[in-house]
Amino acid sequence: MQEQSLRPRSLPRVGIIREMGLRDGLQSIAAVMPTAHKIEWIRAAYEAGQREIEVGSFVPARLLPQLADTAEVLAFAKTLPGLQASVLVPNLKGAERAIAESACLMLVPLSASHAHSLANLRKAPDEVVADIARIRAARDAAGSGTLIEVGISTAFGCTIQGRVEPSEVVRLVKAVLDTGVDRVSLADTVGYADPAMVREMFELTLPIAGDRLNCGHFHDTRGLGLANVYAALELGVSRFDACLGGIGGCPHAPGASGNVATEDLAYMLASMGIATGQDFDALLALRARLAGWLAGETLHGSLWRAGLPKTMKEFA
Amino acid sequence: MQEQSLRPRSLPRVGIIREMGLRDGLQSIAAVMPTAHKIEWIRAAYEAGQREIEVGSFVPARLLPQLADTAEVLAFAKTLPGLQASVLVPNLKGAERAIAESACLMLVPLSASHAHSLANLRKAPDEVVADIARIRAARDAAGSGTLIEVGISTAFGCTIQGRVEPSEVVRLVKAVLDTGVDRVSLADTVGYADPAMVREMFELTLPIAGDRLNCGHFHDTRGLGLANVYAALELGVSRFDACLGGIGGCPHAPGASGNVATEDLAYMLASMGIATGQDFDALLALRARLAGWLAGETLHGSLWRAGLPKTMKEFA
Repeated sequence: MQEQSLRPRSLPRVGIIREMGLRDGLQSIAAVMPTAHKIEWIRAAYEAGQREIEVGSFVPARLLPQLADTAEVLAFAKTLPGLQASVLVPNLKGAERAIAESACLMLVPLSASHAHSLANLRKAPDEVVADIARIRAARDAAGSGTLIEVGISTAFGCTIQGRVEPSEVVRLVKAVLDTGVDRVSLADTVGYADPAMVREMFELTLPIAGDRLNCGHFHDTRGLGLANVYAALELGVSRFDACLGGIGGCPHAPGASGNVATEDLAYMLASMGIATGQDFDALLALRARLAGWLAGETLHGSLWRAGLPKTMKEFA
Repeated sequence: MQEQSLRPRSLPRVGIIREMGLRDGLQSIAAVMPTAHKIEWIRAAYEAGQREIEVGSFVPARLLPQLADTAEVLAFAKTLPGLQASVLVPNLKGAERAIAESACLMLVPLSASHAHSLANLRKAPDEVVADIARIRAARDAAGSGTLIEVGISTAFGCTIQGRVEPSEVVRLVKAVLDTGVDRVSLADTVGYADPAMVREMFELTLPIAGDRLNCGHFHDTRGLGLANVYAALELGVSRFDACLGGIGGCPHAPGASGNVATEDLAYMLASMGIATGQDFDALLALRARLAGWLAGETLHGSLWRAGLPKTMKEFA
């Protein structure tokens, strides 16, 4: 068993990138992006090949004016065939809106860090697990097809609490799966993960969760975002969150900034022969438009400056 | 055998970072750094824990004025106890100088790309292999203790030629080892490597070279530098080239820029529990001084902005 878990599976043949820029990216940017730009962004991302996009969050508009138009943006996203449009919901109230608006998927954050959970949601992790059970009951009672994914945030450490015990992450993954949600994912909310930690954490949780755990959410705060993705890929994980231009962070995790850049992640996967369905010219053109929409904000990533290698251009 | 090669060995317990900023970094920067700054850099890097530093290159001064003071810089570096001071030598003439000046190690580049080899040295790879045999003979004839390392450049692709066949890299590694040199290393000179390529190339060459191949040289041109390091670490490779502030590139490889940043690499290794002997405060202070010395040049890397995670500060 131990021997087996140390042997890498073959790399996935297909990689799925979930674009988080419209939610995780924009939520840390004060200047509100007009709804029309968000809709253009989603349309262009869809045309570039993206089939999973988190379009916003159902939180009170006064707390996050940037995402106050989530219902409208979601309604547009749902017109695009085959697009899985997801929203973040912090609690039952948000989940009820996601169900009412027929989001394809709702992502419920659950901090593995007790201190982060209190700072972010004013609830201990186990209280959030109880909420998640209520969300699942409400979804089922409504006969809704909205999938529920629980994102275990600060799964690799926390700027407030410091270390987060892997055993606590494992305990919460089990608890969450027991509530009957569809999926669970692991998030390095504050950019503390390294490839060895990623390997360890997925080796601990994959045997418990199986196919219900198939997504990694990594920040590039200290330059390890793509190394962490590779560590997860080796264990068979094939779905990753990313933000175009590497924007993003967490308002309750001081110092955190920069999700893995969508375009760099797409490049790494394509270079490794993992199909993503992304059109690089379209992605980079969209990144340039985003830079214009977010004038004054710092965008990140490397591919936009270096361009594709000659070897990939020849075979594109 | 195949089964065995697919199983990752345990990660190395110690990682060695060879600082390449003074050679690979500076050689693409036109403004000549005063010798006094180079000496300060080496002294501070040594005090920060670095024990392998490439201090310059024995090439004609008219071709590379930036490195014209290599003999003087090397003489200083050799006064620091336990420091392995290396120089790059492009040919026999350079090697004779390295031997005369008693460099600890001379690094001889050999392009796996035929086109790059012609552009860089005006010789085909096999002519360079013949030169390397002459360099080894000259070293032995002189009774010199200068180690010879051959760096296989463009081992993962080339901006001029495009694809470089892994079989050609394997052939050259064998040919080079047959000349009796001490070491061989693999370099992604132009930033084309991805973790799957790194894994494949080291899996092909490690069984041939054994302990004589224990160094990876990665550029971060497209953001994959540290992911590539991790892929090599998993195969037991424990020595990596890097440049403080991620400076560097190759003048004969258009578009290439940015070696892996020393400070980010040191952080990744330390975070994974791999001892490097580096003092982060000293490294980051030196990076700040380097930024001053190179005013106008773009430095790279992430750690300097984000700082160490709370979890590492607590246990530092």
